[in-house]
Formats: sequence, C-alpha cells, structure tokens
Amino acid sequence: MPQPKLLLFDVNETLLDLKPLARRINTTLSNNLAFDLWFSSLLHYSLVETTTGNHEDFSRIAKATFEMTALKFKKVVPEEEIESILGLIKKLPPHPDTVEALQVLKQKGFRLAALTNGNPTVAQAQLTFAEINQFFERIFSVDEARAFKPNPKPYVFVLDQLKVKAQESLMVAAHGWISPALSVPVFKPHSLHGMVSSNIHWPKHLPLIVKTSKI
Amino acid sequence: MPQPKLLLFDVNETLLDLKPLARRINTTLSNNLAFDLWFSSLLHYSLVETTTGNHEDFSRIAKATFEMTALKFKKVVPEEEIESILGLIKKLPPHPDTVEALQVLKQKGFRLAALTNGNPTVAQAQLTFAEINQFFERIFSVDEARAFKPNPKPYVFVLDQLKVKAQESLMVAAHGWISPALSVPVFKPHSLHGMVSSNIHWPKHLPLIVKTSKI
Repeated sequence: MPQPKLLLFDVNETLLDLKPLARRINTTLSNNLAFDLWFSSLLHYSLVETTTGNHEDFSRIAKATFEMTALKFKKVVPEEEIESILGLIKKLPPHPDTVEALQVLKQKGFRLAALTNGNPTVAQAQLTFAEINQFFERIFSVDEARAFKPNPKPYVFVLDQLKVKAQESLMVAAHGWISPALSVPVFKPHSLHGMVSSNIHWPKHLPLIVKTSKI
Repeated sequence: MPQPKLLLFDVNETLLDLKPLARRINTTLSNNLAFDLWFSSLLHYSLVETTTGNHEDFSRIAKATFEMTALKFKKVVPEEEIESILGLIKKLPPHPDTVEALQVLKQKGFRLAALTNGNPTVAQAQLTFAEINQFFERIFSVDEARAFKPNPKPYVFVLDQLKVKAQESLMVAAHGWISPALSVPVFKPHSLHGMVSSNIHWPKHLPLIVKTSKI
C-alpha cells in the first residue's frame, strides 16, 4: 500500500471525547447504559434512512431516538431539556492527545480532513469549540452526499472534492464499522472483524492504523 | 388504498415472543439492558453490511455483536454457551394471540407470507417450533435477496416471487423501522414517525395496521 496523502478523520469519539454527553444522558435517564443504548439506536436508524434511499439530519434522528430511548426508561424529558442535552455534542473536548497527534501529522505533510455523520453546522461548531478546526483543510458532513457512513457515497464525495484517489487516502476512526466500502476502501478491516476493535479509542487507535497501513 | 391480497409478516417480536432469549441474555450478562443493547447493535451491524454492499448470515452477525456486547460488560462467554444462548431464537413461543390472528386472517382469504432477517434454516425452525408454519405459503429469508430489511431488495424479491403488486401487499411488523421503502411501500409510516410506535407489540399492532389500511 502506498503512503497515503490524505487522512480522513471521523469526528465523534475519534477526535472528540463523548463522555460529557454520555454522562449527561446517563444521569437524565438514571441508567449507566442509557447513552450506549441511545447511540446504538441512532446509528441503526441513520442507516435505516440510507438503506431506504432517504436522508435526514443526524440531529433530528438523534432527537427522535433519544425520545424513544427515554420512553424505554419510562421518562418523559421536556423538549428544552432534550435540546440542552443533545446540544452538548457541540461542546465536546478533544481527547488528551488529539491536538498533538494532529500537529505531528500535519508537520509530516499529510493532508487532513474530517468526515462526520453530523450536519455541517454541528461539525463546524464541534471542531471550533475543540480548537482543532485549523488542522483540517475541509470539514465534510455526510449531508453533502445524503447518505450516512459507512455507505460509500460520502467517501466518494470527499475523494472527488479533494481530488484524491482512494488508494491515496486513509480513513481514521475509533469505530470499526466506519471503514470505507466498495471501491473506496483504503483501510478496510472486514466489518465483522472490525467490530472487535470498535471500542479502541483515539490514543491507541491511530498508531494501530498507522502501523497497519505502513505510513 | 385497495384491500391487500398479501400480508407479509416480520417474524421476531412480531409473530414470536423474544422474551425467553432476552431473559437468558440479561441473566448471562447480569444486566437487564444487555439484550436491548445487543439487539440494537445486531440491527446496526446488519445494515452496515447492506449499506456497504456486503451480506452476511444474520446468525454470524448476532454472534459477533453478542461477543462485542459481552465485552462491554467485561464478560467472556464460552463459545458453546453463546451457541446455546443464541440457539434460543429457534425456540421462541408465538405471542398469545398470534395463532388466532393468523387463523382469522387466513379464513378471510388473505395470502400470508413471512419475511425475516434470519437465515432460511433458522426461519423454518422458528415457525415450525412455534407451530405456525402451516399458515404461510412461503417463509422468506432476506438471504435470498442478500440485503437486510428495510432495504427494498428483499421486499422486491418477495413480491416478484409471489407475483403480487406492491399496492396489493401489506407488511406487518412490530418495529416501525421495518416498513418497506422506495417503490415497494404499502404500509409506510415515515421512518422517524414510525419510531414512536416501535415498541408496540403484536396484540395492539396488528389491529392498528389493519385499521390504518382499511382491511
């Protein structure tokens, strides 16, 4: 595999730490698995949209699945509180070593971009709040391709926009299931195999991928 | 909407009661949300396969996501125990009023078929164990179309095999997200709206759909 030119970063959990959001959701719904359950539903329902040829703002699916999850815990959370809770997605800190890693990669000459399921406004707000937006030449939302990850469309869109070939790029993600697909793959663990590493977070994960792909 | 000729039934949770499986998983992983978390991951990862143009046996994804879920609870479950636990999917009872409902619908002259994410062997075993296989003229697995619900492919496949037009058929499911899509829709709540009713189980659900579609 040739040295990649473009490193394409997933945002939530890969660059940013979801813990503040997780804690708030678990507290609100009085269960320490509430966040996990909500997030899993969110990912499932996002792909329900994509696989049926539809698309919807990730924030709207987040809200609908949050209400669904709250119902499971027999809680009714007022509208304004839901907005406040889910608004935390825009105020997540980077993982402790995210900034240094981005600096090093930038200095080594890699092109850096981000691709997130979130809408463009949320994506910009997130990376600006975390003070890492300056590292990325473009911050992409899947909305631009109207399909959620890991459908190939957003990856194809990014490569086309940045004029980079698939084999010159590398997706970096904390979640195994995000690996690009079909004609786009660069770092592509088999999705079932990839699950095993789906809990690996940023600090361990980047070196792992870097090693795999011989940067 | 014209009177449907074909009623196409989802299997798990719609016709069959998943509680025995849920109880066993919750007991094994010592958490009463373990089943929900596993099932949500299973559905997510099944669509990861479909949206990346791949397909995999639902039972294999079930096993991989079970191991993933067990890890989250810091449990390592021996291989044979996993097989034994997940094997319960083939020994689920029908909901208390499933048999009577199927009898009534059959007597009224509807054609009945089933369409499940499970593989053909599991699907046959399930409906045979529940003693309701005789009601269905065909028991379809998504494997025949190599795409998980609610991707349109399996619905298209069923309609083609049974020589029924989309508008002459009706999907019956306990889960809102299963509603058929694209050119196939017959009973199609908007998927976000459908979430609201996703916890409605069989006894309430069938009359609801029947009412909606004016059978």
